Amino acid sequence: MKKLNNIAVLTSGGDAPGMNAAVRAVVRTGIYHQLNVFGVMYGYRGILKNEIFPMESKSVANIIQRGGTILKTARCKEFYEYEGRKKAYENLKKHNIDGLVVIGGDGSFNGAQKFSQEFDIPCIGLPGTIDKDIAGTDFTIGFDTAVNTAIEAIDKIRDTADAHDRLFVIEVMGRDAGYIALHSGIATGAEHIMMPERKTELHDIIEELQANERRKKLVNLIVVAEGDETGGANEVARRIKESCPQLDTRVCILGHIQRGGSPTCTDRILASRMGYAAVDALLEGIHNVMIGIVNDKIHYTPLDKAVKAKQEIDPEWFKIVKILAS
Amino acid sequence: MKKLNNIAVLTSGGDAPGMNAAVRAVVRTGIYHQLNVFGVMYGYRGILKNEIFPMESKSVANIIQRGGTILKTARCKEFYEYEGRKKAYENLKKHNIDGLVVIGGDGSFNGAQKFSQEFDIPCIGLPGTIDKDIAGTDFTIGFDTAVNTAIEAIDKIRDTADAHDRLFVIEVMGRDAGYIALHSGIATGAEHIMMPERKTELHDIIEELQANERRKKLVNLIVVAEGDETGGANEVARRIKESCPQLDTRVCILGHIQRGGSPTCTDRILASRMGYAAVDALLEGIHNVMIGIVNDKIHYTPLDKAVKAKQEIDPEWFKIVKILAS
Amino acid sequence: MKKLNNIAVLTSGGDAPGMNAAVRAVVRTGIYHQLNVFGVMYGYRGILKNEIFPMESKSVANIIQRGGTILKTARCKEFYEYEGRKKAYENLKKHNIDGLVVIGGDGSFNGAQKFSQEFDIPCIGLPGTIDKDIAGTDFTIGFDTAVNTAIEAIDKIRDTADAHDRLFVIEVMGRDAGYIALHSGIATGAEHIMMPERKTELHDIIEELQANERRKKLVNLIVVAEGDETGGANEVARRIKESCPQLDTRVCILGHIQRGGSPTCTDRILASRMGYAAVDALLEGIHNVMIGIVNDKIHYTPLDKAVKAKQEIDPEWFKIVKILAS
Amino acid sequence: MKKLNNIAVLTSGGDAPGMNAAVRAVVRTGIYHQLNVFGVMYGYRGILKNEIFPMESKSVANIIQRGGTILKTARCKEFYEYEGRKKAYENLKKHNIDGLVVIGGDGSFNGAQKFSQEFDIPCIGLPGTIDKDIAGTDFTIGFDTAVNTAIEAIDKIRDTADAHDRLFVIEVMGRDAGYIALHSGIATGAEHIMMPERKTELHDIIEELQANERRKKLVNLIVVAEGDETGGANEVARRIKESCPQLDTRVCILGHIQRGGSPTCTDRILASRMGYAAVDALLEGIHNVMIGIVNDKIHYTPLDKAVKAKQEIDPEWFKIVKILAS
Repeated sequence: MKKLNNIAVLTSGGDAPGMNAAVRAVVRTGIYHQLNVFGVMYGYRGILKNEIFPMESKSVANIIQRGGTILKTARCKEFYEYEGRKKAYENLKKHNIDGLVVIGGDGSFNGAQKFSQEFDIPCIGLPGTIDKDIAGTDFTIGFDTAVNTAIEAIDKIRDTADAHDRLFVIEVMGRDAGYIALHSGIATGAEHIMMPERKTELHDIIEELQANERRKKLVNLIVVAEGDETGGANEVARRIKESCPQLDTRVCILGHIQRGGSPTCTDRILASRMGYAAVDALLEGIHNVMIGIVNDKIHYTPLDKAVKAKQEIDPEWFKIVKILAS
Repeated sequence: MKKLNNIAVLTSGGDAPGMNAAVRAVVRTGIYHQLNVFGVMYGYRGILKNEIFPMESKSVANIIQRGGTILKTARCKEFYEYEGRKKAYENLKKHNIDGLVVIGGDGSFNGAQKFSQEFDIPCIGLPGTIDKDIAGTDFTIGFDTAVNTAIEAIDKIRDTADAHDRLFVIEVMGRDAGYIALHSGIATGAEHIMMPERKTELHDIIEELQANERRKKLVNLIVVAEGDETGGANEVARRIKESCPQLDTRVCILGHIQRGGSPTCTDRILASRMGYAAVDALLEGIHNVMIGIVNDKIHYTPLDKAVKAKQEIDPEWFKIVKILAS
Repeated sequence: MKKLNNIAVLTSGGDAPGMNAAVRAVVRTGIYHQLNVFGVMYGYRGILKNEIFPMESKSVANIIQRGGTILKTARCKEFYEYEGRKKAYENLKKHNIDGLVVIGGDGSFNGAQKFSQEFDIPCIGLPGTIDKDIAGTDFTIGFDTAVNTAIEAIDKIRDTADAHDRLFVIEVMGRDAGYIALHSGIATGAEHIMMPERKTELHDIIEELQANERRKKLVNLIVVAEGDETGGANEVARRIKESCPQLDTRVCILGHIQRGGSPTCTDRILASRMGYAAVDALLEGIHNVMIGIVNDKIHYTPLDKAVKAKQEIDPEWFKIVKILAS
Repeated sequence: MKKLNNIAVLTSGGDAPGMNAAVRAVVRTGIYHQLNVFGVMYGYRGILKNEIFPMESKSVANIIQRGGTILKTARCKEFYEYEGRKKAYENLKKHNIDGLVVIGGDGSFNGAQKFSQEFDIPCIGLPGTIDKDIAGTDFTIGFDTAVNTAIEAIDKIRDTADAHDRLFVIEVMGRDAGYIALHSGIATGAEHIMMPERKTELHDIIEELQANERRKKLVNLIVVAEGDETGGANEVARRIKESCPQLDTRVCILGHIQRGGSPTCTDRILASRMGYAAVDALLEGIHNVMIGIVNDKIHYTPLDKAVKAKQEIDPEWFKIVKILAS
């Protein structure tokens, strides 16, 4: 096994709370093992632009609790092309980097996968995305924080919904996955949850809202994933208003607040553990895998299998939602 | 002076955090003075529908920290007409109510003003609105909580803006008043604040964004009051994108989360003090005024003067914003 | 199988955030299955004092987000004796109760176990304790909230530790178990974690603090579980001050704030799921078990096995703590 | 008037949330006026040790929302002596510093006052202390954040107090001043507030607790300022337990969490405004004053008058506390 000397770490794709905790773990575990650790700014773009700098233990002091990412992030089209990846390789080689840790989502892993097949720099992926929709891991860095941010916001909306007897249609993030909608909806006692994994019959919901109105249940929360096939909160509200003009219906789109904020305990520990495991894997010669946690154990998934995955959602959850919100 | 025996309290108009603390103060101060205190559900509508019920000290236990209003709130068109107010009077008289405390905004005071001129039930208004735009008081119940909710959200947005070098246009509440925009903008170091009290030259902002871009300052936050004459965050972003297509521009509309949540220390104390003062005023025969705080002292304003007031905003604040965000 | 008609639910032992969410789930799932659901105030004491009352769906509206427990809790010595349990049985029988859900810790399950052996009222236990030290479940209701409360507090302490270059010894809850210390310590980047599951050599810590001082690392956080064998934060600080009088050492005991507060998303979902499963179990004739979650699946543990369990803590965690805090 | 060229800023004494916002405002306002701005680490000690460094606009980016102080703080005995101050003067002169902004409490102003009398470097003080006990200003930087931190903690304690019917004695910061106790006590509906400004008759409180017990009011919160003459929460609880052994009495000392955390909107705006005004004052040749806010206007107080001041507390507040907690 080739001796490892210099590694680099970057964050890529959409940012997620806990990315800083992961960077900290990679840097300090690397230094502990007497590696030189380099940070790359702005994801793959920073490799191409040679924004690569040595990091010390102090560089990551006092960041475990910070949202965002001190390494910043960006999307980089050039890296999709072979020419771009070649240039990246050359820049990394200038620093003698022989291992790369990529914290990001499935798009970022796809790039890493190609790169590591073409060139002799092993890559390790860490799943950093609020959407939790990556195969090969039970949790992703940022999801727990995002849902907690969402429920704090929805609790506030319930206060005002309750004061006014209003119906709120609340849109949460999740272009392809409804986990944020599902978890935040259950946790706030939402009456309905709409998500891409499951066809929603809006007319059923409307009928139920009308039935609720008859029994004087006027406060209703509908949590919609942005990627739901009905087209998001504004469209849902428009169609409800059409059928139920007498309901006092409002829309709230939580938006980017779900990406920021200090990470929760779960996300900090998850990120720390995964960052530690990433360096461990590189040292042991395990290459081109994503680090996951499955049943509380470290689990490796080849990067080309670490794709966006619509997990089957147990239909019992929808029964629970219905029963508990009644 | 006629002896006071039975008073009623209601919340009216848009809800605001701290309304519960005010209700609690009215109820317990009333009981302390051996009055019977009645709660009215859903504002004036509740008087018309006779949703009036006796309250005890216990009825307001453990609510000082709750958002929303346990008495609920509603708008009531019937009360705008004399016939409606007459019916209201008759319902209040059935309970021998001889004093009414109305917690709400200028619209609610307008109703109370007419009512108290026509009928012999004195009214006291407490300014409960997140917008802080009522003449005769330095603070309104709910404003401090709303701006703190806004800055927590904007801090989160800055995390992600900073990770991606993005421009965010953030819309906060304030249809007629820009206080929430001004305070939350200063407190989060926003680069620009747009509010109805002051004409914004959007082309100046655009020029500055372009200058910022040239010096690589790409993270910019623009806080817009919903009532700004340019037409809100979506329109502002649209026009910026038109002129600066290369900027990564996003919109976030904070919306109703600003109305909910546990009130801040300032709002709880303000509400407690005002609720106490309201009963005091009724007992002393001071009628048909709004309770305000001016320079930390209780201040009475006749209800017909307690109107929506665009306070002059000291232009130095805009200089401060510009200097500190640079 | 005997038909189930009337069930009761109570909370017992130390309170934990999420108990209300669990009560809500039991009540609404029961009603959905056309059972009559009774609430018992103050745990077993309430059965003995006949503080048993019928609950409806509305009784648990708007509580999923509340800390504490609307059913209150208490410890009850009388229930430890056969005579007490007999009286409890008689009172439950007056209401024809044929199933009991007990939300609490191992002490409460012990009572339920004896009771259900002696009398023909089946019991289901739900693990509600911030300490997470119950055999047969990966999580307990309240733990996730407690650690998040702890890390928010410790983050604040780090702000001031950092401003002053101070050493803080922070005591978190956990009389028999160090999970709160372990999780909150990792998540806040604490330099040392002291917990009952593992003997701490204080002189090693002191030596390390002295080494840190030599290399100018003066900000240090030590997180101590209250049940650590050294005797808690005050004693630890006393001994450090003795050996390192030059360090600016402070103590902070987080105390009961760890029991309160709005539950996190994880705790609300956990409690909802467990409450739902408890009624399900009773309906299916599964008796005298605690509901747990193991590897994300519902898991039954006989009540007499649902005891306080010191889980083996993977020694790798201590290595991670050491490496990441360096 | 001598032209101002180079100014320095430091934070001194106990840290307070908002100090960073004040530093940011001083730095950016200075730069705007084409001054060179220097930061001093660790308060006066940093001047003596020559830990003085030039700051740019970027040095204070993204800190308005951070607790603690990036300039760190320390107490410095040497500066109490003339020799120390002379050395400080010489070090400042090495950098040609002709203006000094000191963010701290009355002790720090005392040093600044002596220094500015002895040497020709004008000083401006900004009141940064969570205790709010400085003459010449209605608010101090950090107070609003500290009370909001305290009420969030006390709300959590009330959850568990309420679940168990307990009496909690809660100690908040305030060695000489009871403002934190008073504000947090009112805002959380505490039954009793004990503070140094007012002699507490503990036997009266005990009698009332006994009366409450007779009418089954068992949940009681007592908020005690650490500087109360009875000797703090532990002593208060000890004496209550002596007289009322049947009450379930617990102690919680909030401690240093009150110093940290992200500043509130009020503290950020206050700090920004004061930092801006400090540079303004130096530029206008106003020297050796503390910047205060009185009735929402900037107010100058000579540094030797900016002493710890026990403001008279309006006795009506105690009446309000009593009435509202009943």
